Amino acid sequence: MKKTLGEIAAFLNGELKGDAGVLIENIRAIDDAREGDLTFIANPAYTGKLTTTTASGILVAPGTECPGKNLILVGDPYIALSRVLALYYTDEPDLPGIRKEAFLEEGAVISGDATIYSHATVCRGARIGAGVVLYPGVFVGRDAVIGDGTVLYPNVTVYHRCVIGKRVILHAGVVVGSDGFGFAAPGAMNIKIPQVGIVQIDDDVEVGANTTIDRATLGRTWIQRGVKIDNLVQVGHNVVIGENSVIVSQVGISGSTKLGKSVILGGQTGLAGHLMIGDHVMVAAQSGIHEDVPANLAVSGSPHLPHKDWLRAMSCVAKLPEMRKTLTSLAKRIEGLETTTKRSDKENR
Amino acid sequence: MKKTLGEIAAFLNGELKGDAGVLIENIRAIDDAREGDLTFIANPAYTGKLTTTTASGILVAPGTECPGKNLILVGDPYIALSRVLALYYTDEPDLPGIRKEAFLEEGAVISGDATIYSHATVCRGARIGAGVVLYPGVFVGRDAVIGDGTVLYPNVTVYHRCVIGKRVILHAGVVVGSDGFGFAAPGAMNIKIPQVGIVQIDDDVEVGANTTIDRATLGRTWIQRGVKIDNLVQVGHNVVIGENSVIVSQVGISGSTKLGKSVILGGQTGLAGHLMIGDHVMVAAQSGIHEDVPANLAVSGSPHLPHKDWLRAMSCVAKLPEMRKTLTSLAKRIEGLETTTKRSDKENR
Amino acid sequence: MKKTLGEIAAFLNGELKGDAGVLIENIRAIDDAREGDLTFIANPAYTGKLTTTTASGILVAPGTECPGKNLILVGDPYIALSRVLALYYTDEPDLPGIRKEAFLEEGAVISGDATIYSHATVCRGARIGAGVVLYPGVFVGRDAVIGDGTVLYPNVTVYHRCVIGKRVILHAGVVVGSDGFGFAAPGAMNIKIPQVGIVQIDDDVEVGANTTIDRATLGRTWIQRGVKIDNLVQVGHNVVIGENSVIVSQVGISGSTKLGKSVILGGQTGLAGHLMIGDHVMVAAQSGIHEDVPANLAVSGSPHLPHKDWLRAMSCVAKLPEMRKTLTSLAKRIEGLETTTKRSDKENR
Repeated sequence: MKKTLGEIAAFLNGELKGDAGVLIENIRAIDDAREGDLTFIANPAYTGKLTTTTASGILVAPGTECPGKNLILVGDPYIALSRVLALYYTDEPDLPGIRKEAFLEEGAVISGDATIYSHATVCRGARIGAGVVLYPGVFVGRDAVIGDGTVLYPNVTVYHRCVIGKRVILHAGVVVGSDGFGFAAPGAMNIKIPQVGIVQIDDDVEVGANTTIDRATLGRTWIQRGVKIDNLVQVGHNVVIGENSVIVSQVGISGSTKLGKSVILGGQTGLAGHLMIGDHVMVAAQSGIHEDVPANLAVSGSPHLPHKDWLRAMSCVAKLPEMRKTLTSLAKRIEGLETTTKRSDKENR
Repeated sequence: MKKTLGEIAAFLNGELKGDAGVLIENIRAIDDAREGDLTFIANPAYTGKLTTTTASGILVAPGTECPGKNLILVGDPYIALSRVLALYYTDEPDLPGIRKEAFLEEGAVISGDATIYSHATVCRGARIGAGVVLYPGVFVGRDAVIGDGTVLYPNVTVYHRCVIGKRVILHAGVVVGSDGFGFAAPGAMNIKIPQVGIVQIDDDVEVGANTTIDRATLGRTWIQRGVKIDNLVQVGHNVVIGENSVIVSQVGISGSTKLGKSVILGGQTGLAGHLMIGDHVMVAAQSGIHEDVPANLAVSGSPHLPHKDWLRAMSCVAKLPEMRKTLTSLAKRIEGLETTTKRSDKENR
Repeated sequence: MKKTLGEIAAFLNGELKGDAGVLIENIRAIDDAREGDLTFIANPAYTGKLTTTTASGILVAPGTECPGKNLILVGDPYIALSRVLALYYTDEPDLPGIRKEAFLEEGAVISGDATIYSHATVCRGARIGAGVVLYPGVFVGRDAVIGDGTVLYPNVTVYHRCVIGKRVILHAGVVVGSDGFGFAAPGAMNIKIPQVGIVQIDDDVEVGANTTIDRATLGRTWIQRGVKIDNLVQVGHNVVIGENSVIVSQVGISGSTKLGKSVILGGQTGLAGHLMIGDHVMVAAQSGIHEDVPANLAVSGSPHLPHKDWLRAMSCVAKLPEMRKTLTSLAKRIEGLETTTKRSDKENR
């Protein structure tokens, strides 16, 4: 793929400052870009690199100036990058059609234009929508539903009766619908509570590699439209994740906790069970959430605090040894004062 | 399945308060239950919902009162739920027998009534017990043993020579017997220590999706009878987990650490290596255990403290900025007192 | 395998103190070793067990004395163990050659002496080197490269175009090259940034079960020569891990962070994105790294501190309630002093 900078600027509805005729052959990060490459500055921390790059074109935010460089000014350089990447790098589907080594149980319903690779399995009663791609090692259990345009990468497991929407991406090794962790008399008898609910994943969700989403005890575990989940995340039974929420890697969400819309959970955060997390809540990485969080709050720490309170508290933690020394020295000085005062008090009387 | 409330009460040996003739068609959680449904209150936090539910029957703890509602009083409503769920939702096995697409190496010993799906592999010398189910993508290595009634969900890997007991459930993506993480001169030469031991999993164990259990360097990594492990847990080489212990999601247990019976580890907890954790120890979520814990203790935090001490310490963390301010103001007041006292001391002399 | 202690000492270039003719049949850990076994003391904490073991031979550090026991003195007993284990336990390859149930797309290039099991998939354009072993359920995507002598255990997924070096070991369930977690307008529009880079893994790397390594947005995610990664680790897009670094289980490394050589990251540690971690840095388990760390430093805690500062701060955390009480009592004593001083000051005037 080769396009001129002028063509790319037009495609992005961006404002070009520089040579419209330059040919762009590749897109590269700011540190790697050379002549013939388009690059971008999405993070202001990297603005200093504008002057030193030898890239032939740079996507930048409105108002950016850099004489001698070819700039395309766009509202959001990161969004513009996503569009131009999709333009330059169109991945061909590997192999269309159903491979003979795939295993389709009698009673599975497969759309005519689905792509099913060797060593994939679709059980009876399952329905596979139009344009779906099932890579090798994918398992779709009995009566499960896979919506149109959804891609299941290698070795994804979808247990029986789970329902997955349209244009969903499940990366390699994702498990949807394994049993929730429910045992009566835990530590003593460990009596298994049958997990008879399902997982429902709505349209336009993406789930990262080896993430696990447990089926509900009763009812459903529910991942709503537009949610993005990173790798190695644990989603417990009966959890609800609201629209467009973003869950970073290695987060764990305990059973029956409900997240509102547009919640952002930083990596390695843990949430206790049966909590309500309001819309637009932001949780910093490695936090531990032990109680409900109202909408629009930013929280941090384990146990969590409002983010600003946590910052203040943490700045004191490093000072703790000094504080302890100060306490001891103040106590001594007070003792000294008490002795002096008692003496002079006596002398005065 | 339809049964009357009277029949269900009899099945559970429960005490019925209300209409024995009502038909129950489904079992649903308290927020979803309608007419024709049975529901339950296992967590006292939800007792308030008793009066508002329109469920046709409710499993409750002894002593519960709610005039106008059909109650079944049972010793433990959660255990009763598990029994009635098993009664209502009997999952049929997907496909009995051995599929021709399964791959059985010559020298594998398969019980006549095992179910082996397409794309499963059993290597030579492995023994598969009666009633075992191996789903697609399961790999059972050379000389491994799978006990009677055990179920391996899709894409489970059991490495060579590992021994798995009876009625064990391994959820999708579980790895049993990968090499322990042992390197001499770590960070410098990283010389691999061959991991020639095994993993032994005893009867009635359940392991959650994508959990990994490493084989021992020498001897065995040992998961004892009745242990329940959640998703994405890491169990290091030569670890021992005592009977009926419960390990919540994303816990990591370092090499050679030994847990007693009925230990409960909260989610995302980490344990250092070579530790002894006594029977009935309870560890709160996100703890970091760096030394031995005696039996029957509850601990929290990273580094861990006795639970009560940790609660007290954490209540102070949020107060740290205030404490620091107080320290500064006290220091000033002491300075003031010292000045006054010195002056009056001088004047007195 | 049976060898005399003398033969083993010669093989290890060790110094034998004791009976050279004793036959060694097995190698066992110090607690399990009996007559006929060789054992070892690598951790000084176990030196006390020297006198009580009934093992027929013991690998020990130089200078160790234990009259009546057969000792082999070696520079590093753990390295010696690794050599003697490799001598005694030579694992035979399961099945040489390419199984007919493997699926090789037309255009895949497979070395003559590779071993490819049933239910493995190699896509077109992929190149598989000499002596490579692909276990069942392995997926090698389009145009990916697997170097000579590399082993991919069951259900490993390597996405298209990723490049894996020689003598690499990827344990079961590892995912290499899944999409990095990049979305513009996160929490609002969640616009996917196409991830068009690759993962490059250099020679002699080992990666633990179910670990995930994301492909770069642009360019490469790069695991350098000799790196050892444990189970369930998350490596984000565009991360670089320097030579011989050791990454313990459940660590998470956010996008674009770069580690120097010989870095050691303790279990469950998290690193923010876009950081530089210097050579030979050591990070304690469960740390949270939020800013660059210079070479050769040891750090701990979340947010991290230099290790010694962290130890001091943590020793104070448990004392916080006591410190708070002291603060209150000092305030009262100061109040008392102020009252007395004001009174005597007044009386004096």
